[in-house]
Amino acid sequence: MTIEQFVAQSSGKWRSMRSGHSLAFQQFEEVLSEVTIEQIDKENTAVKQLLESSIIANQDDHLVTSPFRMEWCAESDWEPEDPSEVSSGSCIIVPLTKDNCSGKLIRSVGYAESEAAISEYHFLDDGTFTLTTQYEQSIAEERIWFVSENVRCRSSVLRTSAGSGILQTSFASEVRRINA
Amino acid sequence: MTIEQFVAQSSGKWRSMRSGHSLAFQQFEEVLSEVTIEQIDKENTAVKQLLESSIIANQDDHLVTSPFRMEWCAESDWEPEDPSEVSSGSCIIVPLTKDNCSGKLIRSVGYAESEAAISEYHFLDDGTFTLTTQYEQSIAEERIWFVSENVRCRSSVLRTSAGSGILQTSFASEVRRINA
Repeated sequence: MTIEQFVAQSSGKWRSMRSGHSLAFQQFEEVLSEVTIEQIDKENTAVKQLLESSIIANQDDHLVTSPFRMEWCAESDWEPEDPSEVSSGSCIIVPLTKDNCSGKLIRSVGYAESEAAISEYHFLDDGTFTLTTQYEQSIAEERIWFVSENVRCRSSVLRTSAGSGILQTSFASEVRRINA
Repeated sequence: MTIEQFVAQSSGKWRSMRSGHSLAFQQFEEVLSEVTIEQIDKENTAVKQLLESSIIANQDDHLVTSPFRMEWCAESDWEPEDPSEVSSGSCIIVPLTKDNCSGKLIRSVGYAESEAAISEYHFLDDGTFTLTTQYEQSIAEERIWFVSENVRCRSSVLRTSAGSGILQTSFASEVRRINA
C-alpha cells in the first residue's frame, strides 16, 4: 500500500460509527457521523499556504503526494436535539512522502487538540496505515485499515506526553455511502 | 513478537471495555467484563483431549506452545440487574506454532459460534497479533495489540462466509488489574 493508493481508496462519503473509551472512568461514548474525503490539487492555495506555514525541516527531501480535504459532521447519540451536541468541521491534510511506506502528514487542524499538527505515518506489512501525532499535552496513535473495499476501521490511542499513561481509546467503523 | 511472549504478556486479569458495532442497523453495544488469562501445562489433560479431538492435518509439523485458559465474565451496561444479561464462560486455547510468526490456535469454544474452532494466526511486523477463524456461517478476523505493558486493544470483524459482507465489528480496550 502506498499513500496514493490509500488516499484514493479513502476518497468518498463515509457513514461512521465511533466508540470512545475513557479508561480511567470506564465511560463509553458513541458518535454517529458522516465523513467526506476528497482529493485536492497540489497547486491549491490552501495547500500551498499550509506548506509555507509549516516548520518542517528538510521539507525539500519530501514529496507532496495526494493532498486531500476531510469534512465531518458528528451527531452524538445523546440528546441529538441539542444543537451543541452536533459538531462539524473540516481540515486539509497534506502527505509528504519520505519513501514508499512512510512520511509525514501536515494537518490544518489536529485530532486531539485544535491546532495545526504534524504526524509521522508508516504502513505495516499488511497495509495498515499507522499515524503518530505529538501534541503539547498528549500523543495520539491512530491506525486505519480496510476490511473490504467499502468498509474501513480506525482506532486511536491517546497517551500523555510525559509518561506512558493511556487516557482514552476509540474505534470507528466506516461504511462507504454508495450513490450519496 | 513470538507466541510465547504474547501469551506471557497477556497473562493476568484484565478489565475490558468492549464496543460492538452492528453495521446494517447502526446499533452500538457496550459491554464491561473481566477477562482472566492463565497459562496451563502442555501435559494438562484438557489440553491433550483438545489436541486428540482436533482434525488438524499435519499436526506433527506444528509445535504445541504456551497453552492457556481464558475466562470471562461479561456484564452488559443495559439492565445490569437482569441476570440473563450477565454472561460468563471459559475456554482452553492451544497454539500450534508453524514458524516464529505464524501458526494455528485450537479453541475449545469459538468466539462467534459456540463450537470448537481452529484459527490461523500471524504477527504483523509491529507485533500486532492477527487471527482468522472460519466458522460455518461466518469468518472472524481479530487483531490484538499492546499499547503499553498494561493496556491492550482488541478489534474484530465478522464477515459472511459466502461473500464479502461485513456483519459487525467490535473493539475492546483492556486494562490489566494490578494486585487483583
